[in-house]
Amino acid sequence: MHRTKVRVVEDALDANNTIAQANRADFDRAGVCVVNLMSAPGAGKTTLLERVLGGLGVRAGVLEGDVQGSLDADRLAALHVPVIQLNTDPGFGGECHLDANMVRSALGAMPLADIDLLVVENVGNLVCPAEFRIGEDARVMVSSVTEGEDKPLKYPLMFRQCDLVLVNKIDLLAHLDYDLDLFLHHLDAVHPGVPRMLVSARTGEGVGAWRDWLLERVAERARTAAPA
Amino acid sequence: MHRTKVRVVEDALDANNTIAQANRADFDRAGVCVVNLMSAPGAGKTTLLERVLGGLGVRAGVLEGDVQGSLDADRLAALHVPVIQLNTDPGFGGECHLDANMVRSALGAMPLADIDLLVVENVGNLVCPAEFRIGEDARVMVSSVTEGEDKPLKYPLMFRQCDLVLVNKIDLLAHLDYDLDLFLHHLDAVHPGVPRMLVSARTGEGVGAWRDWLLERVAERARTAAPA
Repeated sequence: MHRTKVRVVEDALDANNTIAQANRADFDRAGVCVVNLMSAPGAGKTTLLERVLGGLGVRAGVLEGDVQGSLDADRLAALHVPVIQLNTDPGFGGECHLDANMVRSALGAMPLADIDLLVVENVGNLVCPAEFRIGEDARVMVSSVTEGEDKPLKYPLMFRQCDLVLVNKIDLLAHLDYDLDLFLHHLDAVHPGVPRMLVSARTGEGVGAWRDWLLERVAERARTAAPA
Repeated sequence: MHRTKVRVVEDALDANNTIAQANRADFDRAGVCVVNLMSAPGAGKTTLLERVLGGLGVRAGVLEGDVQGSLDADRLAALHVPVIQLNTDPGFGGECHLDANMVRSALGAMPLADIDLLVVENVGNLVCPAEFRIGEDARVMVSSVTEGEDKPLKYPLMFRQCDLVLVNKIDLLAHLDYDLDLFLHHLDAVHPGVPRMLVSARTGEGVGAWRDWLLERVAERARTAAPA
């Protein structure tokens, strides 16, 4: 019984990876750098995007994943970047993550030839989004200091799979019983040395480093895509 | 393709409901009131339990759901109540919710005959836990004010399925751009009139009402279970 379930799951992940590779090929052809942005609900993904996407200096687009509604897409559209809303609610009360096929279904509506950077804002969830590759160049996760120091130990796959951790809401540190050193200790226990930035989407602190990181990823992709 | 998927999902939920009914029958025989406690990661479920379970006046037990680790179970065991840890990590990088069968697998280790209240602390996630009944009497969700006002609109199933909403971390309200009235407006839009309590697990504010609510549920179950 358990073995059968594991097999079904492995097959599903294999199928996902095949579609992720097709997405990757499309992104390569268009020369687009793709970032998969993940976090728990309310950690600040959208606000961190609002902080950097306006006036970024490269052409950006956003694929906005939500179980229901278009609140975040509406906020980001105000920045005058192309935003496509992906709702996961048909069937099953709402899928809890984006997978490669859902992303693929939205690519036709995204002008890939006209952008340099595509940010995929995943459904707010620290478990399943980490299991599904979508063809991205990099995975960024946001961990809010209001969530407590223990999250890397409780959701290790998410923290292990990401290329950058944005530790958000640091403006609240003075008002919390939160031990930042302990969080970083736990983070290094599950993903030693992973790049991390302390930021506040609310005050703007640290947001410049996050913007520079995005620009560097776009530049790196342009370099590796250039003919020899 | 989509129809097939919906059918598979419906079959899975039917199977879950059958097992949930078996759990329910066991809880009825033992006269145990069962509360399914759900929230996003880091909203304060465990701290809210720490606040009320010691000296509650009825005999309580906890079934602690986590993808990995036993941090929360270790905290609650210090209260000298029976705590069983349920880890969801075998296969699939960790299931993102508890289902009726997982709960059932742990019941043999929980001394049901010796408790009046069983709290099942679900995996931190605002999507899938709402889809799986486990045989509970009541579903309680915790929504932290640090998560923003829009959560009922973005995760409507969770807010619609619950019997009580604990609005936690209200000690931080003075330091946030959070509009409590707007949150309550959204909450009433998806679940009109659902009982709600403003609490702070950190300061203890409002925790008495949460304790009283639990005691009332236990008393109600004892009344309805009593022979006519």
